[in-house]
Amino acid sequence: MSDASYDSNNIFGKILRGEIPCHRVYEDDDTLAFMDVMPQAPGHVLVVPKAPSRNLLDADPTVLSKLMPVVQKLARAAKDAFEADGITIIQLNEPAAGQTVFHLHFHIIPRHEGQPLKAHSGKMEDGEILATNAEKIIGELGN
Amino acid sequence: MSDASYDSNNIFGKILRGEIPCHRVYEDDDTLAFMDVMPQAPGHVLVVPKAPSRNLLDADPTVLSKLMPVVQKLARAAKDAFEADGITIIQLNEPAAGQTVFHLHFHIIPRHEGQPLKAHSGKMEDGEILATNAEKIIGELGN
Repeated sequence: MSDASYDSNNIFGKILRGEIPCHRVYEDDDTLAFMDVMPQAPGHVLVVPKAPSRNLLDADPTVLSKLMPVVQKLARAAKDAFEADGITIIQLNEPAAGQTVFHLHFHIIPRHEGQPLKAHSGKMEDGEILATNAEKIIGELGN
Repeated sequence: MSDASYDSNNIFGKILRGEIPCHRVYEDDDTLAFMDVMPQAPGHVLVVPKAPSRNLLDADPTVLSKLMPVVQKLARAAKDAFEADGITIIQLNEPAAGQTVFHLHFHIIPRHEGQPLKAHSGKMEDGEILATNAEKIIGELGN
């Protein structure tokens, strides 16, 4: 159903294989969650399955069923960690929808009243800020 | 974890109880899918669990696990039905994130290259157009 096959040489594939670093906040046998390096709001975190798929369209349904309780867990933790008023969940499929990394991922973005989402600027967030924000979410997951 | 409890008097609760109509495209024991009456693009469809929850934050994780394969099924059907280049999935939690109906729902929005998402205008789409678009998706689900 996808427009192209999975290419394991994508950046999230490299993160999953440990070839490049990430600010990890959660990991289990099937799932990894880490900070988006170009956050649309503070606390913007990504949840990815370890199983390869280009996006939602070609994913194994059983992978999705395991993934969503983790998306929920991270959404709750991010909301609490950033004392957010709400959470936006976005999942993009193919370039026409804005997908830029071709490994299935869910965006979890803490929202505050009156603060519009920032566009993806292409500008990397400071690593120390990302590390601090990761620790906030990890702290909530431990609670 | 939610900011307020579930109020069954919301518009999707009424649709689920058959108190108000919808342009239904899919139904099973746990899930209903129907056309968004204020579409952000042609073919914009909503998937809701029948189980009550305000949004993702207070949902039963087992409900999410059952729901997501249906979201995938509808995303594939909507993409094919509208010959879309991509699919945007959005799920909003609390007013700060833009949630306006307080029953958990996933937006599935067909996307075409170079066509930005329309904002929620508050303007209802013509009923005949919605009915025609529902039939297109139903046709793909049957394939």
